[in-house]
Amino acid sequence: MDLLSALSLGELALSFSRVPLFPVFDLSYFIVSILYLKYEPGAVELSRRHPIASWLCAMLHCFGSYILADLLLGEPLIDYFSNNSSVLLASAVWYLIFFCPLDLFYKCVCFLPIKLIFVAMKEVVRVRKIAVGIHHAHHHYHHGWFVMIATGWVKGSGVALMSNVEQLLRGVWKPETNELLHMSFPTKASLYGAVLFTLQQTRWLPVSKASLVFSFTMFMVSCKVFLTATHSHGSPFDVLESYICPVLFGATLGADHHHDNHGGHGGAHGGSPGAAHSPLPSKLKEELSEGSRKKKAKKAD
Amino acid sequence: MDLLSALSLGELALSFSRVPLFPVFDLSYFIVSILYLKYEPGAVELSRRHPIASWLCAMLHCFGSYILADLLLGEPLIDYFSNNSSVLLASAVWYLIFFCPLDLFYKCVCFLPIKLIFVAMKEVVRVRKIAVGIHHAHHHYHHGWFVMIATGWVKGSGVALMSNVEQLLRGVWKPETNELLHMSFPTKASLYGAVLFTLQQTRWLPVSKASLVFSFTMFMVSCKVFLTATHSHGSPFDVLESYICPVLFGATLGADHHHDNHGGHGGAHGGSPGAAHSPLPSKLKEELSEGSRKKKAKKAD
Amino acid sequence: MDLLSALSLGELALSFSRVPLFPVFDLSYFIVSILYLKYEPGAVELSRRHPIASWLCAMLHCFGSYILADLLLGEPLIDYFSNNSSVLLASAVWYLIFFCPLDLFYKCVCFLPIKLIFVAMKEVVRVRKIAVGIHHAHHHYHHGWFVMIATGWVKGSGVALMSNVEQLLRGVWKPETNELLHMSFPTKASLYGAVLFTLQQTRWLPVSKASLVFSFTMFMVSCKVFLTATHSHGSPFDVLESYICPVLFGATLGADHHHDNHGGHGGAHGGSPGAAHSPLPSKLKEELSEGSRKKKAKKAD
Repeated sequence: MDLLSALSLGELALSFSRVPLFPVFDLSYFIVSILYLKYEPGAVELSRRHPIASWLCAMLHCFGSYILADLLLGEPLIDYFSNNSSVLLASAVWYLIFFCPLDLFYKCVCFLPIKLIFVAMKEVVRVRKIAVGIHHAHHHYHHGWFVMIATGWVKGSGVALMSNVEQLLRGVWKPETNELLHMSFPTKASLYGAVLFTLQQTRWLPVSKASLVFSFTMFMVSCKVFLTATHSHGSPFDVLESYICPVLFGATLGADHHHDNHGGHGGAHGGSPGAAHSPLPSKLKEELSEGSRKKKAKKAD
Repeated sequence: MDLLSALSLGELALSFSRVPLFPVFDLSYFIVSILYLKYEPGAVELSRRHPIASWLCAMLHCFGSYILADLLLGEPLIDYFSNNSSVLLASAVWYLIFFCPLDLFYKCVCFLPIKLIFVAMKEVVRVRKIAVGIHHAHHHYHHGWFVMIATGWVKGSGVALMSNVEQLLRGVWKPETNELLHMSFPTKASLYGAVLFTLQQTRWLPVSKASLVFSFTMFMVSCKVFLTATHSHGSPFDVLESYICPVLFGATLGADHHHDNHGGHGGAHGGSPGAAHSPLPSKLKEELSEGSRKKKAKKAD
Repeated sequence: MDLLSALSLGELALSFSRVPLFPVFDLSYFIVSILYLKYEPGAVELSRRHPIASWLCAMLHCFGSYILADLLLGEPLIDYFSNNSSVLLASAVWYLIFFCPLDLFYKCVCFLPIKLIFVAMKEVVRVRKIAVGIHHAHHHYHHGWFVMIATGWVKGSGVALMSNVEQLLRGVWKPETNELLHMSFPTKASLYGAVLFTLQQTRWLPVSKASLVFSFTMFMVSCKVFLTATHSHGSPFDVLESYICPVLFGATLGADHHHDNHGGHGGAHGGSPGAAHSPLPSKLKEELSEGSRKKKAKKAD
């Protein structure tokens, strides 16, 4: 990593970290976020019948990360809405995506090569948000490791962590699932990224912030573009988790197919109180994994 | 409007804007708000079995607007509860409406001529709250148009915007509907009023605040008294919206009977992704409009 | 009471109020709190499949009171999480209770005599939290009686008052019940304790804070230990409430068997709007009391 900063890559990272996000990158963030809102079942019908509710959902998709971080840090929830230009830009994107004549705008941004560019740019914004969020939390709580990680996480995940609330605004209620129970790739990556940036901020990770932003952005961009291009819903963390989770927690995160791991340490608990408390584990697992599959099939951000 | 301020109406508006709200107008606000709580199915049974939950719901009905505005602006949620006299007054009204011997108090305030006076006075409080809320938000965010409108809106709408939470306290859960999906007249009027007061506050509307408060109060009072007296659930905005919404959003707000508007600009979208995402639009529309009718039939604030 | 402070009991109370809570008492609090999380149906399965959601629920069980009080007083929700040592201790307890090999830790702390000690120590923490919460609220709102009571109440009740949110994180949703509708003994005792401490704080109760903390702790410890040891879910307040509630509210709190009280003052309302609004009161009551019984059967904190 020190080598990397010695090379011209270090300078590249530094100038990359100085590129302003507004308006081009923010625009991409808004476009991709509202695109995923439009993919939700019933969202188009909602925009026709209840434009105000639809607009509010679009704002949550665009600014959910700020709202959640403000909530955690005790700042005004509505603080970010004082950036009139951002809100107007997001509103314009919402209007164009839902109400553009002949659906031209939607068709353009859904064209895969264009969409991939926007997806890549969205990840640039996401990583920058994580870094800024952790810097901000560090300013308030110098030794608050958990505060920093939590702030970075919600800044990266955004509306996903408040999906139940966002659905409720649209009159949809799915209490049996939420982002914590079925984490998508960006949510997990934001969590791991928040841990990395917190380590960097507290000087346990001996790299410059610019290098970390640059390399984590490259990782996120390549993963997300690959996943979007292949319509895949896997996660590059699956392999790692399938090794670590059985050791730490006696089972993999939401995976039922790692039966080879169910011996020794992990298996010792599998048969204990878990079985006593859940008399129908196999049926439940089946249902849960089905729910997970459905959820994944419809979610792609 | 300048003419109006030149006349003695200007002076009338000014002295009207100086009338203190506490205790007479606040009392009317509490009476009408808790009256509507008592109309909710199961509210009386709740007050007998769970007085604390019932009292808390009554407080939300009386002070919901302050709680929401405090949440948005990052102030203590419980801030307004430090006004002991207001809380005691509201508690007394709650006790009298639910537990007065022979139900005398309830029968008195439900007597239509008396109720109309209270309804009129409630609207005076509502408009004043909107104006004060926007002034307060303007103090924090000088150019925060969206912040001002949102603060004024929640100050005017109050508990309606948090109806799901209020119902949950009573053990009732209706996720398929909320105030955003089926806006009542006061909620819509508060939104439009908040826009007007924001324009006034930022000097885009060349009238004095006192005049605007006075004229908007007159409008609200006359509309609300007329709607309450005729047990009507229409809204004077329906005509306006049926013209504007088809042009802007390709459909009217929750109205299915404006088929004559479904050509040209608006109709172009009607057949696009909306239809693709909602294979049963007619059935859904039927259900939704039924829900809307039921909701309207039972709500009258 | 003055007599009590004159005796050496006064000195005992003073030195008792100076005992530091961290780490021993806090540890007991965490152990008992997370124990009750493990008793919840599906919690063990959740910990295997979704460790992060399980960890977050455990944190809510341990720190819910701080989060709620911070929300009410407009402070950062995540404020308490800057105490790294507390969070790490709670996390260690969570890990040991859910993932300890052979479930040794769980079996140890569930052994009744040991559990009773932890339960007693948890009550010590609870009473101290109520006292600190009211002191803190008094600092912000000198004459805010309602603010002080509310803050003390949420500090004492903790996660119970946000049980719907906590369940939602685990994918469980039971809107028809909540802690307000079926108050457990600790929640009620916290409310009454908050009233007492508020009276003390505002000098209406002529005792020293140390004496009140000491005597209220003794009361809570003896009640909770007795209730836990006998697996009882009654409440020492039931007798008192069955006398007061019929007079004040025309019915007892969630009790159907006090038919002898249903004459005179209370009965006068029983037959009025309550009956008009709920055509099936007997069936409803049956269902509700059944719900209450089930709830009680499963809850023991």
